[in-house]
Amino acid sequence: MLRPTLLLALTLASSIAHAAAPPTMASILAEAPAADWQPIDPDQLLVLQLDSGRVLIELAPAFAPEHAANIRKLAQQGYYDGLAILRVQENYVVQWGDPAGDGDAARSLGKAKSKLPAEFDRPSAGLSFTALSDPDSYAPQTGISDGFPAARDPASERAWLTHCYAMVGAGRGNAADSSTGAELYVVIGHSPRHLDRNITLVGRVVEGMDKLSVLPRGTGALGFYEKPEQHVPLRSIKLASTLPESERPRLERLRHDSASFQRLIEARRFRREDWFVHPVGRIEVCNMPIPVRAAP
Amino acid sequence: MLRPTLLLALTLASSIAHAAAPPTMASILAEAPAADWQPIDPDQLLVLQLDSGRVLIELAPAFAPEHAANIRKLAQQGYYDGLAILRVQENYVVQWGDPAGDGDAARSLGKAKSKLPAEFDRPSAGLSFTALSDPDSYAPQTGISDGFPAARDPASERAWLTHCYAMVGAGRGNAADSSTGAELYVVIGHSPRHLDRNITLVGRVVEGMDKLSVLPRGTGALGFYEKPEQHVPLRSIKLASTLPESERPRLERLRHDSASFQRLIEARRFRREDWFVHPVGRIEVCNMPIPVRAAP
Repeated sequence: MLRPTLLLALTLASSIAHAAAPPTMASILAEAPAADWQPIDPDQLLVLQLDSGRVLIELAPAFAPEHAANIRKLAQQGYYDGLAILRVQENYVVQWGDPAGDGDAARSLGKAKSKLPAEFDRPSAGLSFTALSDPDSYAPQTGISDGFPAARDPASERAWLTHCYAMVGAGRGNAADSSTGAELYVVIGHSPRHLDRNITLVGRVVEGMDKLSVLPRGTGALGFYEKPEQHVPLRSIKLASTLPESERPRLERLRHDSASFQRLIEARRFRREDWFVHPVGRIEVCNMPIPVRAAP
Repeated sequence: MLRPTLLLALTLASSIAHAAAPPTMASILAEAPAADWQPIDPDQLLVLQLDSGRVLIELAPAFAPEHAANIRKLAQQGYYDGLAILRVQENYVVQWGDPAGDGDAARSLGKAKSKLPAEFDRPSAGLSFTALSDPDSYAPQTGISDGFPAARDPASERAWLTHCYAMVGAGRGNAADSSTGAELYVVIGHSPRHLDRNITLVGRVVEGMDKLSVLPRGTGALGFYEKPEQHVPLRSIKLASTLPESERPRLERLRHDSASFQRLIEARRFRREDWFVHPVGRIEVCNMPIPVRAAP
């Protein structure tokens, strides 16, 4: 006879809590007032279409203003439409770009810039940031800034985005300032935090990670597909604000500076559901959910 | 024109280093003497067969002796053969078990035990452990013990396995001691370290993660497949030591207590390849590779 399944236990643990039960993520979100939710700007939201469905990416202009602007320009020009996913490296990244590489047949960047500054970090002054209280292996302090996992250093007064699962970055060559946003990658494995401050992060996948994470792993060096017929077609990447009203996704995320977000942090630090034996009492930045929902 | 690709940069960074170049993982492994490699015991190695190929799991009897023994007994009896993967939850786990659940039609555990103690931690005394020097969000100290990422607490003198990508655990119900090893799960996303010391980890996937991580995500609660026809057949799980000589995988892993492993830790902490701008200077236990190779 099989022991009671993990399903059972986790279903019980995540069900909406009644009055006496400890708060769960589901109960906290259900109780969050409308004011604790904030619309995601459709002008900073990319809609990526694969044959398997839609992937939504929120850009992070507060951290990478030049890259975000360039990517928006590329999307508006239709630059990405018809490109392909070229690389899927197990426990690392999915990456798309121009199958023609940088040869003569490569697509033109048009009115987008072909040279951008590296945007690895920024001043921490002026950045809204909800700090997490627990230690981190890589940074003096971590937290959430708007829709993004981030870190900051009180000594240098710099802040940066962190390479958590679902974060999106701009591929570059050996020169720090060689990324343009034409090639983008998404983290699909354990968060490779050693890349923090080594490459420009530009946003986060807020819907559709399951369309990317299941792609067959490339068998070439670094997970590149070895044959053109293995490339995964990228139908298009459009800016949500340019889509017809009826097709435009409308999303909201839980404000990182809300009381509900603070409740969520504490509920994730101390796991008070019956299933947990050890209360944990800690949270790591890449394990902290940043809830996003369809606008009601 | 497209900027030089990330491919180029990373290929350069990971190529075998010449004398003056900083050591990379590839160069350290190439130079490691035979004595720094240790055979993986075929009596503690599970060979899981899916239609898509083979997955190898090393059991961790030093941490979960009762579970490892029970799982070995189940494998020897053919208990797992013909079961199925029932659950694939995005950024979390793949889990297999008996599609009949624990009802009357459930498969018998035979000579395996139906009741085991929880094996969430163990005394740190007597455990060979290579400590990492950097802080961790969840544990006072982390490190590597034989083939496994682990943690320990000098105050309580306890040690435990950590929920890193590719770790394998035994599903349980609400009772801490309700796992038997009949249902197993594998971590496929950012490491859910809050599960540490809350459920018994039994081993690690040492080959074939890409067979598990690409499986379609289940659309039911907690990533369970909603229809039986979605279940992914598990042809068999055999103990490597019971396979005919010609089919038996022969693996070695880099000894965690070797000089080569120390070099690898430092090479992963300080990324001295040309591509890196920020030297990092830190490593987190779930980002520390534990190299495994086919025996030469």
